[in-house]
Amino acid sequence: MRRGELQQLLDALVAGELSSDEVARRLESSLELGFAKLDLARERRTGTPEVVFAQGKRLDDLERIVARLLEHEGRVLVTRVSAEAARELSERHPEGIYEERARVWSVGSRSGDGSRRVAVLAAGTADLPVAEEAATCAAWLGLDVSTHFDVGVAGLHRLVGVLPELEPVGVVIAVAGMDGALPTVLAGLVRQPVVAVPTSVGYGVAFEGLAPLLTMLNGCAPGSAVVNIDNGFGAAAFASRILETKDRCAD
Amino acid sequence: MRRGELQQLLDALVAGELSSDEVARRLESSLELGFAKLDLARERRTGTPEVVFAQGKRLDDLERIVARLLEHEGRVLVTRVSAEAARELSERHPEGIYEERARVWSVGSRSGDGSRRVAVLAAGTADLPVAEEAATCAAWLGLDVSTHFDVGVAGLHRLVGVLPELEPVGVVIAVAGMDGALPTVLAGLVRQPVVAVPTSVGYGVAFEGLAPLLTMLNGCAPGSAVVNIDNGFGAAAFASRILETKDRCAD
Amino acid sequence: MRRGELQQLLDALVAGELSSDEVARRLESSLELGFAKLDLARERRTGTPEVVFAQGKRLDDLERIVARLLEHEGRVLVTRVSAEAARELSERHPEGIYEERARVWSVGSRSGDGSRRVAVLAAGTADLPVAEEAATCAAWLGLDVSTHFDVGVAGLHRLVGVLPELEPVGVVIAVAGMDGALPTVLAGLVRQPVVAVPTSVGYGVAFEGLAPLLTMLNGCAPGSAVVNIDNGFGAAAFASRILETKDRCAD
Amino acid sequence: MRRGELQQLLDALVAGELSSDEVARRLESSLELGFAKLDLARERRTGTPEVVFAQGKRLDDLERIVARLLEHEGRVLVTRVSAEAARELSERHPEGIYEERARVWSVGSRSGDGSRRVAVLAAGTADLPVAEEAATCAAWLGLDVSTHFDVGVAGLHRLVGVLPELEPVGVVIAVAGMDGALPTVLAGLVRQPVVAVPTSVGYGVAFEGLAPLLTMLNGCAPGSAVVNIDNGFGAAAFASRILETKDRCAD
Amino acid sequence: MRRGELQQLLDALVAGELSSDEVARRLESSLELGFAKLDLARERRTGTPEVVFAQGKRLDDLERIVARLLEHEGRVLVTRVSAEAARELSERHPEGIYEERARVWSVGSRSGDGSRRVAVLAAGTADLPVAEEAATCAAWLGLDVSTHFDVGVAGLHRLVGVLPELEPVGVVIAVAGMDGALPTVLAGLVRQPVVAVPTSVGYGVAFEGLAPLLTMLNGCAPGSAVVNIDNGFGAAAFASRILETKDRCAD
Amino acid sequence: MRRGELQQLLDALVAGELSSDEVARRLESSLELGFAKLDLARERRTGTPEVVFAQGKRLDDLERIVARLLEHEGRVLVTRVSAEAARELSERHPEGIYEERARVWSVGSRSGDGSRRVAVLAAGTADLPVAEEAATCAAWLGLDVSTHFDVGVAGLHRLVGVLPELEPVGVVIAVAGMDGALPTVLAGLVRQPVVAVPTSVGYGVAFEGLAPLLTMLNGCAPGSAVVNIDNGFGAAAFASRILETKDRCAD
Amino acid sequence: MRRGELQQLLDALVAGELSSDEVARRLESSLELGFAKLDLARERRTGTPEVVFAQGKRLDDLERIVARLLEHEGRVLVTRVSAEAARELSERHPEGIYEERARVWSVGSRSGDGSRRVAVLAAGTADLPVAEEAATCAAWLGLDVSTHFDVGVAGLHRLVGVLPELEPVGVVIAVAGMDGALPTVLAGLVRQPVVAVPTSVGYGVAFEGLAPLLTMLNGCAPGSAVVNIDNGFGAAAFASRILETKDRCAD
Amino acid sequence: MRRGELQQLLDALVAGELSSDEVARRLESSLELGFAKLDLARERRTGTPEVVFAQGKRLDDLERIVARLLEHEGRVLVTRVSAEAARELSERHPEGIYEERARVWSVGSRSGDGSRRVAVLAAGTADLPVAEEAATCAAWLGLDVSTHFDVGVAGLHRLVGVLPELEPVGVVIAVAGMDGALPTVLAGLVRQPVVAVPTSVGYGVAFEGLAPLLTMLNGCAPGSAVVNIDNGFGAAAFASRILETKDRCAD
Repeated sequence: MRRGELQQLLDALVAGELSSDEVARRLESSLELGFAKLDLARERRTGTPEVVFAQGKRLDDLERIVARLLEHEGRVLVTRVSAEAARELSERHPEGIYEERARVWSVGSRSGDGSRRVAVLAAGTADLPVAEEAATCAAWLGLDVSTHFDVGVAGLHRLVGVLPELEPVGVVIAVAGMDGALPTVLAGLVRQPVVAVPTSVGYGVAFEGLAPLLTMLNGCAPGSAVVNIDNGFGAAAFASRILETKDRCAD
Repeated sequence: MRRGELQQLLDALVAGELSSDEVARRLESSLELGFAKLDLARERRTGTPEVVFAQGKRLDDLERIVARLLEHEGRVLVTRVSAEAARELSERHPEGIYEERARVWSVGSRSGDGSRRVAVLAAGTADLPVAEEAATCAAWLGLDVSTHFDVGVAGLHRLVGVLPELEPVGVVIAVAGMDGALPTVLAGLVRQPVVAVPTSVGYGVAFEGLAPLLTMLNGCAPGSAVVNIDNGFGAAAFASRILETKDRCAD
Repeated sequence: MRRGELQQLLDALVAGELSSDEVARRLESSLELGFAKLDLARERRTGTPEVVFAQGKRLDDLERIVARLLEHEGRVLVTRVSAEAARELSERHPEGIYEERARVWSVGSRSGDGSRRVAVLAAGTADLPVAEEAATCAAWLGLDVSTHFDVGVAGLHRLVGVLPELEPVGVVIAVAGMDGALPTVLAGLVRQPVVAVPTSVGYGVAFEGLAPLLTMLNGCAPGSAVVNIDNGFGAAAFASRILETKDRCAD
Repeated sequence: MRRGELQQLLDALVAGELSSDEVARRLESSLELGFAKLDLARERRTGTPEVVFAQGKRLDDLERIVARLLEHEGRVLVTRVSAEAARELSERHPEGIYEERARVWSVGSRSGDGSRRVAVLAAGTADLPVAEEAATCAAWLGLDVSTHFDVGVAGLHRLVGVLPELEPVGVVIAVAGMDGALPTVLAGLVRQPVVAVPTSVGYGVAFEGLAPLLTMLNGCAPGSAVVNIDNGFGAAAFASRILETKDRCAD
Repeated sequence: MRRGELQQLLDALVAGELSSDEVARRLESSLELGFAKLDLARERRTGTPEVVFAQGKRLDDLERIVARLLEHEGRVLVTRVSAEAARELSERHPEGIYEERARVWSVGSRSGDGSRRVAVLAAGTADLPVAEEAATCAAWLGLDVSTHFDVGVAGLHRLVGVLPELEPVGVVIAVAGMDGALPTVLAGLVRQPVVAVPTSVGYGVAFEGLAPLLTMLNGCAPGSAVVNIDNGFGAAAFASRILETKDRCAD
Repeated sequence: MRRGELQQLLDALVAGELSSDEVARRLESSLELGFAKLDLARERRTGTPEVVFAQGKRLDDLERIVARLLEHEGRVLVTRVSAEAARELSERHPEGIYEERARVWSVGSRSGDGSRRVAVLAAGTADLPVAEEAATCAAWLGLDVSTHFDVGVAGLHRLVGVLPELEPVGVVIAVAGMDGALPTVLAGLVRQPVVAVPTSVGYGVAFEGLAPLLTMLNGCAPGSAVVNIDNGFGAAAFASRILETKDRCAD
Repeated sequence: MRRGELQQLLDALVAGELSSDEVARRLESSLELGFAKLDLARERRTGTPEVVFAQGKRLDDLERIVARLLEHEGRVLVTRVSAEAARELSERHPEGIYEERARVWSVGSRSGDGSRRVAVLAAGTADLPVAEEAATCAAWLGLDVSTHFDVGVAGLHRLVGVLPELEPVGVVIAVAGMDGALPTVLAGLVRQPVVAVPTSVGYGVAFEGLAPLLTMLNGCAPGSAVVNIDNGFGAAAFASRILETKDRCAD
Repeated sequence: MRRGELQQLLDALVAGELSSDEVARRLESSLELGFAKLDLARERRTGTPEVVFAQGKRLDDLERIVARLLEHEGRVLVTRVSAEAARELSERHPEGIYEERARVWSVGSRSGDGSRRVAVLAAGTADLPVAEEAATCAAWLGLDVSTHFDVGVAGLHRLVGVLPELEPVGVVIAVAGMDGALPTVLAGLVRQPVVAVPTSVGYGVAFEGLAPLLTMLNGCAPGSAVVNIDNGFGAAAFASRILETKDRCAD
């Protein structure tokens, strides 16, 4: 609801141009499924459409949600999808694409136009599922994505080697588990906002991602901010907002 | 070190245009104080100059750092400055300005040009010190800052009331302690990237800011990322990078 | 043991109206099964009968407890029942009803009379098992239950849309995982006591429900109180006491 | 905003009975102080007026908030007030009453009418500040309050001794630190809803109240719910909602 | 090594009554298995023989340890034994007895003589595995054991009912999960030392037994001490020391 | 209330030998001070009289409690007493003795008769306040106390050196901070029950005593149990129960 | 990159002895696999070659990494290898050796020359997997390894018995779970650096290795340092650096 | 007690060369002060003499310990000494030297001979107290110390700049708070063992040093081990053992 949209609706109501029913329908803008209320207005409000988090959902619920969203939006993004669930979804919707490592199933990925670029870096190979979730989601949202994996701080030359390739991007997503030092080191070397994603990779005092999360929040180099552990989608959505802000403000 | 700067230096070295001493000096670019090494190249590398965190530093160390930075850079930003330390600094540098609530002492705040706007929202009045640290630092970095305080979710109408004023800004910084719900609710209502700052305000299970931090990281609405507890400066520096990315990419 | 019941028993003992055996039997009022002592006096004391928590119990122990309670009370409520255990129970007691999503098996659900109404709200679809445990248990206890699912704060219009339907209820149970912001926001919008139930839904720093629990305890809007993570039954039992208090005091 | 109030306002707007300015004023209903936005509509919305939490507020901010609230509402409740701050407030507002142990300063305490009774129990003498905060706030909200202190489970006969006096009350607030067992034991003995308040009393693994909080949330007897550590006011406000629900529904 | 045993050995060495080899053998007193060193002197030193903790041990290692201990000691106690491992052990040592609920396999349980009595109480039926581990181990150590299950504080009359039966015992072991209030309440009612055993029974903030552990350590009634979560054996061994102290000191 | 005492009271009531008033008085046995209810029956029930924990109590409350207890019991033990509070108490009760390092103020310490001996060991000199609290309280309770300080495991020969002196005691109290290894090592060397007391001594990951507490609970040598951090009194009271059990059972 | 290696490369570049391509190749020295960048320069930089952590890697990724490393280095060490993965690797590389208990698969273990000796001690038999990982990795790195298992502090004579055998070694690795006291006790008895390895062995408050980790960090005897929980490889690599330092400095 | 020392003593005892008294005296080797037992044999056993940790000790206790150690050893090292305590110690022992920033008071610092070199690096200026404690203690133990401060990873060129100076040292001590990334990055760049020291510097989720501790334990580059938070002395003592091992083994 932005730029006086509410005011316009009320004006139209007073002017008799819209019935109260119609205003109510527009204001509610959610799709009732009984066990779920799909937020059809989210993209209008925030720029990012409602996205489906599959983990913990029953397969039949998931299928109903996906079907209804496809019906209304024509495209859908589903994260944390098991191979089995992906198979079921693709059977009903053969246009769906499943990225196995990223555990993302989607329909209707947008093509980027080169103006909104993001780089996804991963510290180790075990961080790839999260990094690829970020990359796949970012691409679906219409960003141009480049990836650079296994560039952790144990061998700094690998990280230094990719710095030139980061020059043209607008946002850097840095994914790391264990010591989580990558985003901090990176934020001291580049100019872009660094979106840090801790992963649950590691053992012992990695504490399922808590340790890299703390490292990232304590980072001594300013210029980064952090999303939840393993939240590759969240990083992509945040990067999209950053790059959209660029577009909007450049008007 | 960007846009092939290192390559240029090496080319110049091979071409005999620069001596090895000069190349070394440019590459190191730090100012040795014995107990500290000021990072003079940080702004060139990252867009944000080295900033001084006063808390935990001895007063004489702080004064030496400030004096040397002012000498080289002509401007300086010092955060977490006690009233007593501010008095000492201002005595030697009368051009310094101290924002008491924000605990920030600075020289050389930049004027914004209207193209890089940030809004700082605070959930409660007790969050003001952190919110004002964010606002003061953002202004020093050259952003145009608007503030909206006491707009927590206990009275949603206060938050809804300020939504129209957020339309023109490029980034929203949302500061909250206790339940920390403000950034999440906000991210579901606006299009801008929301930089969430948990504060150590609260008691009991607020756990010095841990609780709002967790809330913010778990936020069910995508579009936000989080900095350390009470880290108003970090939020401002991150917002500045976001808005600078806009400028660079708009070329 | 209330309203001077103990005193009456002692008087009856002195007056010779009751034998010491009878007094002992009434005072102890528990049913010895060897491995368990069923608390037959609980309903008399507290208004809520002993309820069976199936998780962690061996199936044969569970069956013996259910059989003895049915024999004495004629009705029983069992929570956290696996599908397999439910099948076994229903085989012996065909009158039993199993709500699969709620994982509740019961006999003898009471009909509400419209005077004790509770609404159960859930923030996301993944919170449904807990929300339905609350709803099913509340219904068994004789409350009139309405449910509103997927009304989390990421799309506030969905929550605002159900506010009118909350008007006639006496208590609101708000179930949420992840950021756990729903009960706080709700408590700032309605007049009823809000019983907050954190769920173990989420990942990363949701910490199996700890994060929403902290959010709920720190809620900046007064008017809510919290039960254990995933404790749908506890919320229902507490709501029942609130509404019973109403009845008792209205005498 | 309840019982169709919003709808009525919109109808009046359409009918020309109210100007858009007037509707806006009624909808916003907050008092702007610059550093704070007082929520004047909270009582209308939720039944409990905005209350002031003094801890962490600067004295001059506190005085301005109190003055403005008194001007608009004629009564005010301030919690966590130091003796020094209370002295300052009372100098300007001699009608103010300061309960030192409870750390509560207030004007305009309501008289109860006997229909809404609450009992406040405390396990140990060190829990008294929190228990008296609960009692003082409950009284200000118009409840009839009885108190029973030092009835912890180390000497059960003391607790059993007060059970008869709890018969006529509608809600029991149970305050305890250390092992926090009081509310659980109590919930197994009485019929009323038990509002449990953990306190930061104790040492070692009491962890500033975390231990009794966990005990209370894990309580094996259903019928209680928990508020934040040391949150006497929160317990009182919640009790008030419970008893108000009684009144409203009894219509 | 007690009561001057070392001195006697040295005297015998000087006197030529024992060879250095023999002294060395007696002093080391451990049985080398390569992957393990069985502590044959433990009973002589501490009164309790080495006991085998099966969990996490490979089955072949376990069998070798059991075989060697049986060979040297003629009796053995193995805790945390899976049904499968028990079957294997019993095949080789048919005299072995397996208590399934307690997960204890043993040979050579001692008969008590009535002078060393311990009572084992459990708060809920889900605590039985731990309580029965305590009871089985205590019996193997030669104590006379009585058990009282499902006497948690939610129905105090059940606990009060068993108090008379506790009179003749020397130690009370109190086993509880969830709120963990049983030992504290008990310590305020009886004269015996109360050995508190938290269990990992519960869910949500029970945190696998951490919550009842904290409750027990914070217990407001003096007279109890605590062992590790689920450590039924530890409680039995400690009770045995208490009752042995009685015997030794009574000389 | 033990050995059928309740039954005797009821018989006497039925027989008319006692009035109901008298029975009530005997059953309640607490002294009402308004802000406190002194538990006069605790010694009769549990063997240990009510003891006063001074920390967190207001001085005037403390004085009233001490005065009333002295009046009724003729002796009193107060722990965690500041030097200032001790001065005040001693002014009114010159017979009071203050042990400064132990922070214990008491009247009426009992003399031991040599049959109930306890040894108190401390790992480091910084653990002395807690060790001396244990020693002073044990002496007041009538035990014979020997102390051995600075016998931590960093220099095992110091610990081994005191082993012979432990032979005649019935219980060993082992006090340690930091690594907390003393009780575990000790339990592997002696026959007595070892009561482990973690202290808040240490820094860094000692976490105010949490680390030694965990060490003690995890101790690989059976035969010890643990009390709260810094709880010297609790250890003494528990030791007293152990040694009293010896006396009672030896009848 | 050490001892002026970078300077030499630059000199060679200026002198035209090396092309820029060659310099770049030498500086980057990593092997790009797309999903991984093998750090071929690590041994040159740090003395220890890149080692493969198998856990969490997909089997096909693991095989590709192993194949490429073997191709370039002729030897490889893989840790945390499941039996199934080891079978696959050995099928392709029959020269590979799998140590099942240690979960290590390797090719090209070096023979020690007797000058670099390390002893690996384990407190209990359940600590063996970690201890054997340390021993196997140390041997692969060319150290001479002796092992002493089951020497925990519950039976000190076992530990004292191995002290003489530790005399000739240069480093002691001490592996322990549960109470974690072994390294501390050891550090007070020997002269060598003690590398402490906590294990996730234990239950209850062992917290998957957190408790022994804390014990080791708090150790009251100086002379030890700690690696991550279960990190046998890390201890071996650290020991190798210690012993290599000896060699290098002895020049 | 090493290299058969115990055996020699026993042989001498059998041979009549030493009396049992003398053997006992040599074995115990501690100095009894009543409240403390000084471990005079520690240097003989472990290579490092007993050192005094002043924090938490009463001043008079501290003075007695220092006096006795000086009397026996002729030198002493005291850590965590307040300025006030240092003044008192220096008054009695004018030869004492107090390093204020390091908070170390000592007598008898040894001169290094150039063969045992250690470098101490600190990430930020706020880490200096800990870094200087490490440096001062290392020097007292006879090591040659070089220091490099403010070389954190936010400006990697500062760290890279000091790498050449690290070449000749045998051990690197790396001190860091906040993100704690310095030791990990360093371990990937140098060959020496890296002793990591987390500091309590930082705020928010630095959690008094817990965050950098976790980072260091999780470090993805092998070759480092960790000591307790702020434990500069522990790092120095450990470095000394490493370098002493070099000397011993080089025989």
